[in-house]
Amino acid sequence: MIIVLEKRISDDKLEEVIKRLEDYGFTIHRSTGEERIVLGAIGIQPNFDIRKIRILDGVSAVYRITEPFRLASRDYQKENSLIKIGDLSLGSDEIIIIAGPCAVESEEQIMTIAGIIKNSGAKILRGCAFKPRTSPYSFQGLGEEGLKYLRQAGDEFGLAVITEVMEPAQIDLVAKYTDIFQLGARNMQNFPLLRELGKTSKPVMIKRGMSATIDEWLMSAEYILASGNREVMLCERGIRTFETSTRNTFDISAIPVIHKQSHLPVIADPSHATGIRDKVIPMARAAVAAGADGLMIEVHNDPAKALSDGPQALLPVQFSELMDQVKKIAEVIGRRV
Amino acid sequence: MIIVLEKRISDDKLEEVIKRLEDYGFTIHRSTGEERIVLGAIGIQPNFDIRKIRILDGVSAVYRITEPFRLASRDYQKENSLIKIGDLSLGSDEIIIIAGPCAVESEEQIMTIAGIIKNSGAKILRGCAFKPRTSPYSFQGLGEEGLKYLRQAGDEFGLAVITEVMEPAQIDLVAKYTDIFQLGARNMQNFPLLRELGKTSKPVMIKRGMSATIDEWLMSAEYILASGNREVMLCERGIRTFETSTRNTFDISAIPVIHKQSHLPVIADPSHATGIRDKVIPMARAAVAAGADGLMIEVHNDPAKALSDGPQALLPVQFSELMDQVKKIAEVIGRRV
Amino acid sequence: MIIVLEKRISDDKLEEVIKRLEDYGFTIHRSTGEERIVLGAIGIQPNFDIRKIRILDGVSAVYRITEPFRLASRDYQKENSLIKIGDLSLGSDEIIIIAGPCAVESEEQIMTIAGIIKNSGAKILRGCAFKPRTSPYSFQGLGEEGLKYLRQAGDEFGLAVITEVMEPAQIDLVAKYTDIFQLGARNMQNFPLLRELGKTSKPVMIKRGMSATIDEWLMSAEYILASGNREVMLCERGIRTFETSTRNTFDISAIPVIHKQSHLPVIADPSHATGIRDKVIPMARAAVAAGADGLMIEVHNDPAKALSDGPQALLPVQFSELMDQVKKIAEVIGRRV
Amino acid sequence: MIIVLEKRISDDKLEEVIKRLEDYGFTIHRSTGEERIVLGAIGIQPNFDIRKIRILDGVSAVYRITEPFRLASRDYQKENSLIKIGDLSLGSDEIIIIAGPCAVESEEQIMTIAGIIKNSGAKILRGCAFKPRTSPYSFQGLGEEGLKYLRQAGDEFGLAVITEVMEPAQIDLVAKYTDIFQLGARNMQNFPLLRELGKTSKPVMIKRGMSATIDEWLMSAEYILASGNREVMLCERGIRTFETSTRNTFDISAIPVIHKQSHLPVIADPSHATGIRDKVIPMARAAVAAGADGLMIEVHNDPAKALSDGPQALLPVQFSELMDQVKKIAEVIGRRV
Repeated sequence: MIIVLEKRISDDKLEEVIKRLEDYGFTIHRSTGEERIVLGAIGIQPNFDIRKIRILDGVSAVYRITEPFRLASRDYQKENSLIKIGDLSLGSDEIIIIAGPCAVESEEQIMTIAGIIKNSGAKILRGCAFKPRTSPYSFQGLGEEGLKYLRQAGDEFGLAVITEVMEPAQIDLVAKYTDIFQLGARNMQNFPLLRELGKTSKPVMIKRGMSATIDEWLMSAEYILASGNREVMLCERGIRTFETSTRNTFDISAIPVIHKQSHLPVIADPSHATGIRDKVIPMARAAVAAGADGLMIEVHNDPAKALSDGPQALLPVQFSELMDQVKKIAEVIGRRV
Repeated sequence: MIIVLEKRISDDKLEEVIKRLEDYGFTIHRSTGEERIVLGAIGIQPNFDIRKIRILDGVSAVYRITEPFRLASRDYQKENSLIKIGDLSLGSDEIIIIAGPCAVESEEQIMTIAGIIKNSGAKILRGCAFKPRTSPYSFQGLGEEGLKYLRQAGDEFGLAVITEVMEPAQIDLVAKYTDIFQLGARNMQNFPLLRELGKTSKPVMIKRGMSATIDEWLMSAEYILASGNREVMLCERGIRTFETSTRNTFDISAIPVIHKQSHLPVIADPSHATGIRDKVIPMARAAVAAGADGLMIEVHNDPAKALSDGPQALLPVQFSELMDQVKKIAEVIGRRV
Repeated sequence: MIIVLEKRISDDKLEEVIKRLEDYGFTIHRSTGEERIVLGAIGIQPNFDIRKIRILDGVSAVYRITEPFRLASRDYQKENSLIKIGDLSLGSDEIIIIAGPCAVESEEQIMTIAGIIKNSGAKILRGCAFKPRTSPYSFQGLGEEGLKYLRQAGDEFGLAVITEVMEPAQIDLVAKYTDIFQLGARNMQNFPLLRELGKTSKPVMIKRGMSATIDEWLMSAEYILASGNREVMLCERGIRTFETSTRNTFDISAIPVIHKQSHLPVIADPSHATGIRDKVIPMARAAVAAGADGLMIEVHNDPAKALSDGPQALLPVQFSELMDQVKKIAEVIGRRV
Repeated sequence: MIIVLEKRISDDKLEEVIKRLEDYGFTIHRSTGEERIVLGAIGIQPNFDIRKIRILDGVSAVYRITEPFRLASRDYQKENSLIKIGDLSLGSDEIIIIAGPCAVESEEQIMTIAGIIKNSGAKILRGCAFKPRTSPYSFQGLGEEGLKYLRQAGDEFGLAVITEVMEPAQIDLVAKYTDIFQLGARNMQNFPLLRELGKTSKPVMIKRGMSATIDEWLMSAEYILASGNREVMLCERGIRTFETSTRNTFDISAIPVIHKQSHLPVIADPSHATGIRDKVIPMARAAVAAGADGLMIEVHNDPAKALSDGPQALLPVQFSELMDQVKKIAEVIGRRV
């Protein structure tokens, strides 16, 4: 921790600040500049609340010098984390395509869509059985029945599956059917859920909270990593801004930012980020061009009748065209789909 | 729902849009302006996803005409909701003061603070036993032991108590000790938790999510109301913006906005909103001047040693001064503390 | 304009609302739904302040049905605007690359960089002679001397040139040297400047304001179009959000959004959007993949010594590699660089 | 400047970083912690672009230790700046009320309103003669005629006057009539205008840019102060966020934040911040309770017919009631209106 003192700080105040720091267990290193004194407080206390020092008289600014996350950082692990799901290796040169409907609506629906996406080259099937809906009056998902259909469709077409888990009490049930747990944006800081997912042995994909900074997002990953589960991937799905033309603002620059700070794979979800079908295609291409390790795309055979988020689902033919483009863009940057 | 069509829309497209609306169960009312045709789609479908229409060819804009929330709206209930807790009546002319430490740290700590706040006129004692912490390495609360101390301190000093519940599995335990459930900002859209709280018979205070719009916040209230619990209050605690001088941006205008749209009481929490002690006092005064039905203030007898959020806790003497000011401001607007 | 009235509005209030609308010159069209009455106010008044109606008693919501901008809209002109600068045609299938230093620093510097970017395929040379700097103590540009060097470098290497104009009084001077006026983000709503640029006969590139919505940005274009200059292009350069890992959040989805709403070309500036060199390359690729009509990239032969924004300038070799990638991505979507 | 290096940085990289810093003219002070090396770079270069160091290999983070603004800071001047306008002293214990219409519309209008506000205790009359309008098709103000009416109304009722100046070329004209220059939110970073206002001898009120941080806002003040004009005050008018219930989000906490960082007075403008009449009153009270040195309130004798921003103007009777409340709140905090 670095403490910048006010210009012309009195000796009394200076001593008080130093005493406080020592009481908190730090060793102090003083350095006197032309205009100000700067203190270095040495000692590893990753969760020390730096506001405790910032509010002291005579203190101008305080900076933390260690990131609050450790296991998720590139400092901790230089090489990319590879997450194995069957033959797949997320985080490798291969860009993995996850596709499927927003929600599992029926056996027929999920089987049809699974066939379509398999055919275009997707490797993982998505579909929610428990839907987090902002309205209590909306369709809330099929529950376990939906999980069964999803698993069945995955098995039938040789696709791994991913589905959302909404509370600790659902983990065991969902684990019976899924290959990957999805943690929704609204649960990014549901700490009891993070902790319980950390005790499972299946990969977890953490969607970025609507207003989460990248640091907080990595901190959520840290919760799972620290609880013992090392198979974590991140999913950018847009952040909330003042712009209302799109459902959210797709923060594509988060992809290279995370790749620099962390070894965890990053998936991009242009469907939730934009919320409107005709924006999904250009933004999916953009995410791949920016280095995403995977895409998550909503596809529906009959979007007009979808029970949730139909307007952002691609038609099968659009998905197939997108896959063609994405394959070529991947090659340009030395990767493959 | 109102559908504004593009200028010079072709007859084919117009018919297709109308057909779609009718298929979704709406009755259509056409109105032809100088430049454009506007359709009124009549039929009550509060959760209809209007993007389904917005993406149709020839559609320029779509507006919902019914708010998505019903039970929470002033349209549904003209008079303020009054929430009774013992002798207290939240939502009345009396502005209720909730105070206490961020977390219950020990029996002695909570007893000391309870005495201090009682003495200055607070009516409800706060203190968390389960702490949602962004870091897995931080103090996570005393658990049930903390709940016991909190209840004991409340009983000793004749204060009602409020504490946070973090997951459905904790509800029964917390209910044994608390008078009011606090739903934290990070759980504002934890739908399983909202639903379960809706089945209890104790009041719930919903903190605004860090990037929640007022509409979404009221929608979370709707979840609880729709599940059967009519005792809901809201707590403004700051939203995330680009400004970093304060922890969050305290959206005081949310107070009059909600009072217009809804009958539910609004509490203001300047401690979490600003995150720094010397900003809490002016912002607490401001919230009362703007019409808040209550304040939630963090107070600690020894903030420098607090296990969490010490830098935003008022010292006892500051809290006492604040109470004096707040009483006088309440009078100016015809209320009392 | 559409006016949604409150449920159970009294006849008196309803009449008062209608009277007000008629006084403002609208013809009223009433439509009675199951729960509410909706009024259509017919009459073209593009600048009518709809809050005038929103504050009336009994009004629940008001929607404008005509966009406030006209000349900039796709409704007004279906085909893309093509902006001709010599042989170049901005807005066509060819993606135009604009490159150069942030500021013109010396004759030698701009000549060197012009040669480098020409060699890699750029078509337009950028460089500021008047620098808008947030600090009064920073380098403010070379002024007319800088304009001369820029023009000279452009002529020498057969590149068109673009440079920023900061106030109406500079227009004539800048016009002597430049091919395209750049209007900076901080001046997006400098209305006297917009109006004067509208009277010139050279193309204007409008950078998006740091917190401008897409609608406001198009409205600034409208100012210039309405003043008589039809050669307007837009430049996305990032918006301000709570995320601080990048200088701004590059809103790439603005590209397809504008292409749908307007006929004007959109350029992307990943250098200012991200502010850090190693993020510029992936984001430049992403912008092209999303459909940008051009890129504006900062390049410097010796960024460590640059007088402004060196850290976001690409090295010549990086720029050359980027151009190779961008050419291939353009092909994937049926365009060329 | 403080440079935090990566853990396990190689000696080569370390030397390279140090060499770069020395080349830029800094003296280096090295301090070795348990996990990392931290460098202090000593030397006063307030405008040094710290990204130049942040992008070097082996650098983990860089912090500036001197604020970029100097003349505006409390470090530079401990006592509040007092701005004298006739008998008035802005920044003193007296809270100054500025009121009037958005725009001067006619002689009669401004005379009527001046009488009304004088009567309720306002000290300064506002009214724009040049209107920055987002639409080229809206009312743009009366120009010099408006300035004359404003001055005449001020003189008639013994009120000082404030009006907006939009470009350097208008300064001389506006100076003939006004007592205070208003710099609009959209011009907060119009640097040529800031510089020219710095050469005048009349006070300038800087409205906060819609997405300006407090630091940037103070930096704009610095421009004027550094150009020689020491009479600068700031005006909070709301910032842009994702919340759309109010026109902007009124950042009341900016008031105590600036009072801590700077000696300049802060005025609050709840009319533009909220944009809707019935929110202006509670927010005006809140701003005073939070410590504002003045209020700027829009008042109109016939808001329904106002040529601009009528919906946010108070009716005379509302303004009078507000003044009563505000006087009492001022007393509570030891000030007066």
